[in-house]
Amino acid sequence: MNDRMYTHANPYILVYHERAAALCAKELHNLGVTNIHIASSEEEVEPLLDQVEIIFCWKFPIRLFAKAPALKWVQLMGAGVDDVVLSRQLPKEVVLTRIIGQFGAAMAEYVFAHVLYQIKQLEMWRTQQQELIWKPKSVPLMRNKTMAIAGIGSIGQEVIRLGRAFGMRVIGLSKTSASAHWVDQHYSTNQWGEFVAKADIIVITLPHTAATQGVFNRKIFDQMKSDVIIVNVGRGAVLNEDDLVHFLQRHEQSVAILDVFNTEPLPKASPLWTMPNVVITPHISGPSSMVDVSVFFYENLQRYVQGDRLHGQVDVEAEY
Amino acid sequence: MNDRMYTHANPYILVYHERAAALCAKELHNLGVTNIHIASSEEEVEPLLDQVEIIFCWKFPIRLFAKAPALKWVQLMGAGVDDVVLSRQLPKEVVLTRIIGQFGAAMAEYVFAHVLYQIKQLEMWRTQQQELIWKPKSVPLMRNKTMAIAGIGSIGQEVIRLGRAFGMRVIGLSKTSASAHWVDQHYSTNQWGEFVAKADIIVITLPHTAATQGVFNRKIFDQMKSDVIIVNVGRGAVLNEDDLVHFLQRHEQSVAILDVFNTEPLPKASPLWTMPNVVITPHISGPSSMVDVSVFFYENLQRYVQGDRLHGQVDVEAEY
Repeated sequence: MNDRMYTHANPYILVYHERAAALCAKELHNLGVTNIHIASSEEEVEPLLDQVEIIFCWKFPIRLFAKAPALKWVQLMGAGVDDVVLSRQLPKEVVLTRIIGQFGAAMAEYVFAHVLYQIKQLEMWRTQQQELIWKPKSVPLMRNKTMAIAGIGSIGQEVIRLGRAFGMRVIGLSKTSASAHWVDQHYSTNQWGEFVAKADIIVITLPHTAATQGVFNRKIFDQMKSDVIIVNVGRGAVLNEDDLVHFLQRHEQSVAILDVFNTEPLPKASPLWTMPNVVITPHISGPSSMVDVSVFFYENLQRYVQGDRLHGQVDVEAEY
Repeated sequence: MNDRMYTHANPYILVYHERAAALCAKELHNLGVTNIHIASSEEEVEPLLDQVEIIFCWKFPIRLFAKAPALKWVQLMGAGVDDVVLSRQLPKEVVLTRIIGQFGAAMAEYVFAHVLYQIKQLEMWRTQQQELIWKPKSVPLMRNKTMAIAGIGSIGQEVIRLGRAFGMRVIGLSKTSASAHWVDQHYSTNQWGEFVAKADIIVITLPHTAATQGVFNRKIFDQMKSDVIIVNVGRGAVLNEDDLVHFLQRHEQSVAILDVFNTEPLPKASPLWTMPNVVITPHISGPSSMVDVSVFFYENLQRYVQGDRLHGQVDVEAEY
C-alpha cells in the first residue's frame, strides 16, 4: 500500500460495467457497502471522476484513469490485466488488483472437456450413431500422456491437479521456478523448444505481457509433435495466429482449441472459424458470476479500509 | 482352489477368441508359455475338449464347458461374467476368473468425456462455430454437482476418484457396505429411490446378476431429476430400455449415455439410435489390449502352477 491509501472508512466507489453495473451495485449493497455509484458508459463516468477513490470495473475506458485525481485503487472484475498494464495509462500510485482463485475450476473443466472430446474421439462415435453404425474400436487413453502447461498460476495449477488425477505426466513452463514443485518437470523461458517437443497436449494459461507476446510462433510450432493438441485459455496475443494456421494446415492430425484470440470477437474473415482441426469458443472458459466477483471485491474492500494488503495485487512492472 | 487343481507344471491351454486367438497365443508364447492350442470357432474347439485343462477365452461357446472332462480353470478375457454365470453351464468344480483392475482408467475416462460434453454444452459451441456465431454464455460447473455411482467395484471406485478430483459430491449404492468408505454417502439396495433422487449424474457400473436384472425400471426413473444424466457402462440388462425410452421422451432435458444394451449390437430398429437425448457407443468404454489380458492371464498361470489363489476369481453363487 502507499500513502494515498485509506482516507476514510466510507470511500467513494465507482462500479463500471457496460451491462451489469447495477447488478454488481445491488450485490454490494446487500453486503452492506454504501457510497456506491454506477456507470455503464464513458459519458456516465466523466461527472464522477473528481470524487472517485475506488473503481470496480470491467472494460473501463482506460484513458480516464489518469483523470481521477482522488483515485487510489482499481479492482478489475477479471483475471487478465493486459489491457490496463500494457496501456501504461494507470498512474503509478494507484493500486491495481485482479480477481484470483475463482477461474481455476471452470477453466480446468473447459480444458478437460475439450481434450477428452479429442482423445476419446467423440466426434467419430457421434457420426457412427447418426449412421446407425455399430463398429467397436479402441481409443487412446489419457493416462500416461504428457500434458504441458505454459504458465503455472492459479489456473495452471488447477489444470495440473486434474492432469495428475487422470494419470498424465505433467510438465510446466513458467518465468520463475517458484512453482516448479507443481510439475513432474519444470522448464524455464529459455527452454520453449524442448518443452513443447515433449507434449501430447499443450495448455496455454499465460498472461499477455511484453515477454509472452507472440511467444508461440512458427519456430515453436515446428518443434511440436505432429499430432499435438493445443489449448489456449490464456490470451490470444501470446500466439501468432498466422503461424498457427500454417502449422495446422500442414499437420491435419493436430488440433487447436481456442477460447481467446488476437481480436475478439474473432473476425468472421479468420480462417480459424472453418478449419476442421480448430475448435472455437467465444472467451467463455473462465467465467465468474457477478455475485462471486462482488464478494471478492467486498472482502478486498474490508482489507482496504483496515489498511491491509489487498488480494490479487498486480505487479505492474512484471505486467501480471 | 479345489482338489482338481494343478496336475502338472505344463497344463494344456486352449486360447479361444473369434478373431484374436493367434495374437493372444503369440503374446503368451513370447512370455514363455508352452502347450498353447488355439481355436476361433466351435468346430475348432471340439477336437481339443478331451485334453484341455485351462481355457483362456472371449465369447466361448458356453455349452462346451461341460464337455471338457479335464477342465479346471476358465479365465475370461473381460470383466463381465454374466453370460457364463447366468447360463449355469460351468461345472461347479471349475474355477472361473475374470480380468480385474484393467478397465477402471478407460471406463472412467469414457464417463468423464461424455459427462463433460453434456455439462459444458460442447454441442452448442460446435453449432455456434459452424454458424460463425460469437455469443458468450456461461455454462454450468461440474464442481458441486452430485454424482451417483451404482456399483462400487474397481470400475466404480475409479469413477468416484475422478468425481472427487472434479469437486463433485459423490454418493454410491452397492449390495454390501464394505465399500461405503469410498463415498460421501452410501445407499443399500433397498434405497434405490432415495439414491437416484439425489443425483445430477448417475453412473451405472453394476454387473448383470439376477438381483440387478432390470433394476432401472419405470418406478426408479420416475424418481430421478428431470434433467439427470444417466451413463450406463455396466451391463445393458440392468436397465429396462422401454422404460428408459419412455422417461427420455417425457424429459427432454435428461440425457442417457449408453455403451451397453440388452441386445448387442443394438438392433437398428431400436428408438434409442435416433433420440436427440441419447448417446450410443458400441460397447467400447472398457477396452483392454490383447497384450494386457495376456499378461494378466500369464501372471494368473504362475499362481495356478504354484497352487496359489488366482486373481479375479468369480463368486459364482453371487454371480459376479
